[in-house]
Amino acid sequence: MTLTVPVDTGLARYDIRIGAGLLRDPASWEGMPPSRHAVIVTNVTIAPLWAQTLAQMLTSLHRQVSVLELPDGEAHKDWPALNSIFDHLLQSGCDRQTVLYALGGGVVGDMTGFAAGCYMRGIPFVQVPTTLLAQVDSSVGGKTAINHRLGKNMIGLFNQPIRVVCDLDTLRTLPQRELVAGLAEVIKYGPIADPVFFDWIERELDALLARDVQALAHAVQRSCEIKAQVVGQDEREGGVRAILNFGHTFGHAIETALGYGQWLHGEAVGCGMLMATDLSMQLGLVGPQHLERMRDVLVRCGLPTRAPDLGVAAYLSLMGRDKKAQAGEIRFVVLDGWGRAAVRPAPDECVSEVIQRAVTR
Amino acid sequence: MTLTVPVDTGLARYDIRIGAGLLRDPASWEGMPPSRHAVIVTNVTIAPLWAQTLAQMLTSLHRQVSVLELPDGEAHKDWPALNSIFDHLLQSGCDRQTVLYALGGGVVGDMTGFAAGCYMRGIPFVQVPTTLLAQVDSSVGGKTAINHRLGKNMIGLFNQPIRVVCDLDTLRTLPQRELVAGLAEVIKYGPIADPVFFDWIERELDALLARDVQALAHAVQRSCEIKAQVVGQDEREGGVRAILNFGHTFGHAIETALGYGQWLHGEAVGCGMLMATDLSMQLGLVGPQHLERMRDVLVRCGLPTRAPDLGVAAYLSLMGRDKKAQAGEIRFVVLDGWGRAAVRPAPDECVSEVIQRAVTR
Repeated sequence: MTLTVPVDTGLARYDIRIGAGLLRDPASWEGMPPSRHAVIVTNVTIAPLWAQTLAQMLTSLHRQVSVLELPDGEAHKDWPALNSIFDHLLQSGCDRQTVLYALGGGVVGDMTGFAAGCYMRGIPFVQVPTTLLAQVDSSVGGKTAINHRLGKNMIGLFNQPIRVVCDLDTLRTLPQRELVAGLAEVIKYGPIADPVFFDWIERELDALLARDVQALAHAVQRSCEIKAQVVGQDEREGGVRAILNFGHTFGHAIETALGYGQWLHGEAVGCGMLMATDLSMQLGLVGPQHLERMRDVLVRCGLPTRAPDLGVAAYLSLMGRDKKAQAGEIRFVVLDGWGRAAVRPAPDECVSEVIQRAVTR
Repeated sequence: MTLTVPVDTGLARYDIRIGAGLLRDPASWEGMPPSRHAVIVTNVTIAPLWAQTLAQMLTSLHRQVSVLELPDGEAHKDWPALNSIFDHLLQSGCDRQTVLYALGGGVVGDMTGFAAGCYMRGIPFVQVPTTLLAQVDSSVGGKTAINHRLGKNMIGLFNQPIRVVCDLDTLRTLPQRELVAGLAEVIKYGPIADPVFFDWIERELDALLARDVQALAHAVQRSCEIKAQVVGQDEREGGVRAILNFGHTFGHAIETALGYGQWLHGEAVGCGMLMATDLSMQLGLVGPQHLERMRDVLVRCGLPTRAPDLGVAAYLSLMGRDKKAQAGEIRFVVLDGWGRAAVRPAPDECVSEVIQRAVTR
């Protein structure tokens, strides 16, 4: 059974298809432009597992299908890796009709989407996310980027794919640590937008951790629906879209300070969500029972809940460089009641206390 | 007197303002977003002439105005120079509201526009072109790019500025060779779109070469109007916009083969236009008198009309990698009658003859 989530950003429309066995299903690729060239951009970990399956399916659409393997990991979400995509495209004589297929996690998706946006000033691309995190988060919404040594995701584009194909079979080969990191982003959608979904997650968490396909299908679908709805209102993050960054302001600080790759993105976001929930509680916006429920779910997942002890000053400085910072003021995504989010500044003392509690939790 | 050319691409609207003394005129900057940070991106040649004038004008809009000097020339339209813009923005703590001002020629405009499109996934930018070429060509239409070692302008974006300010005073300090290279693009608009404008150019060429402000103002205005009209029909170069590349297929081959910086872009385009007019004549689309008029105007300008002798095979191979190439077939912008352009393939023998004539002219 294939679930479909339509996305309409005003500027672009595309479908997210969710189900088991989709890579091998010809219907997944129907309607993609039958251009001469297609390039599957993937990484050294995913390539041996899935690249041949996808390449075989695409030969009926494209005369020449090639596979480009990038190094694996956030540490390689940089210019040299991005440029290796351009090298490959130019060396293969790829023209403006070429379609890129991003087969992998968020790093592959981010770099492929960025490369597609820039190659000859824009060619189409398809997202084929193979991690839970990418399926529920980075493949929806059109954010693409590479990292700069002075900040994460600082150089990039809003660029929408022409389709997203989430094959749940690809999650079978995902290391448990990565599955759990992806669950952090799934969990996020509850407190910011849908308390009933959070109730469901609490109930179905064991099934999700055991990779039950039905549970995963619903988790991916509901996450994508919520994200698509938010992005549909605000493609370029002027307003409401910022709520999707719940947990990310603290999380980015952790990732940046430790160096990309120490903590997984979802792990940093999970810990960041707990801090942001704590901050919301300090501001009187949610109750202690909500902080407790958030903490319990993260602990059941095995996600880290203690933040690394960088010192309060380092956190504040790192967060000041977050893209959401305006005119030097740090703005936080907080819970404005359980199931609703808002963006607002917070007193430094309050933030300091949250950080101190998080590093000693 | 300020002339205004409105541009509407469907996705973006902005004004091109043309006149003498505009940099010093507060009216030129009215309506620009009054953000905390502004960065003037310029180059080492233009900075000592104009950067302080512009910076002073902007201090009433922006609390912090900084100037970043890039190296001068097409050879530096590359990733290291682009990344130096990102370094500067991040080191200065520039946020998403920061406005970039591109003060310089096409290289500065291309890189600033590209950087603005990618920094934190997009910040606004203003074009302040200081060469004739940039005023009539690269500042209109939103094409931005850097070069790749395997091809010119291969990595870039369509990204529209929020305003273009063409101060004709900045042309006074332009070396004659660059003024003349800019005239090549002005001349282009006649045969592809407006035969009356070409008649005017033939009549006023001496005034243009002597930098008569009234003549320059009309030349810039009419060029921008034609370009804006074409771009308004086709922002992303799916169809009619390609006619603006008249002369560019041959021209890019010349630039690529000689290495960027040997011939100026306008010189290569001028020579390329003559070759494309010759090709049009071979295809029976224009008469020998049109080739003659084109040649005469280029010669009066002092533009090169003999193409470098790379060998026919090298030309064909270099042109096959042009962005307009589709599925291996080289498509040329030809004159479909004098004052009209069309895009079409041409027989290899015909193209070979054109190349052979051009290298021995």
